[in-house]
Amino acid sequence: MTVEKINLSDKFGKLPAGDYAVRLVAKMNNYDFKIVKFKGDFIWHSHPETDETFIIMEGTLVMNFRERKVEVHAGEMIVIPKGVEHKPSSEDGYRAILIEPEGVSNTGDVRSEITIEKIEWV
Amino acid sequence: MTVEKINLSDKFGKLPAGDYAVRLVAKMNNYDFKIVKFKGDFIWHSHPETDETFIIMEGTLVMNFRERKVEVHAGEMIVIPKGVEHKPSSEDGYRAILIEPEGVSNTGDVRSEITIEKIEWV
Repeated sequence: MTVEKINLSDKFGKLPAGDYAVRLVAKMNNYDFKIVKFKGDFIWHSHPETDETFIIMEGTLVMNFRERKVEVHAGEMIVIPKGVEHKPSSEDGYRAILIEPEGVSNTGDVRSEITIEKIEWV
Repeated sequence: MTVEKINLSDKFGKLPAGDYAVRLVAKMNNYDFKIVKFKGDFIWHSHPETDETFIIMEGTLVMNFRERKVEVHAGEMIVIPKGVEHKPSSEDGYRAILIEPEGVSNTGDVRSEITIEKIEWV
């Protein structure tokens, strides 16, 4: 078996243009490592079955919760506990590594026009 | 529930002096997020029960496999598949995020004087 490293800058550089894109970059057991770029206001949702981790690589993610918000900057991470409603926002955009089990929907318990049926590899 | 972010630079700054330290910084489901700093030659080992992920934050990790080696630099990551023998090395030292299930031994299937019985939080 040949084990290859993953260069995250290279992977971010291959994302399509636009304010939102998410792609798979690696698997660990039954967990996905994805890269995501996002600018704007996401939708309120939760993941009833799992925690979800964001590691911010560039920019600032404003993670809104119902009772408060947390600004997560490059070099910081946050674990969203399962079942906790959250709405990611970013005025200037952020790039992050997203870690969660396989098959988790990007919009969690909510179906929306931004729900992605199947995340592609990059 | 109050969800707190984690500042990785702050956490690295709290590691004890020396060439090797590993501490817990977060949990996601039954997985651990640890930070590790290491300089020198680790020991050959494998994790028969799980994959293991390194995200390099500073410096260069040389991941030795039996048939080759891979240099993993800051901004790169590598997933070591379960059961694959590996020996981390670093001439000048590296800092990384380490992600794996709870309870995984730092020396895997090998017991050694550097085996840590219980990883502490920082």
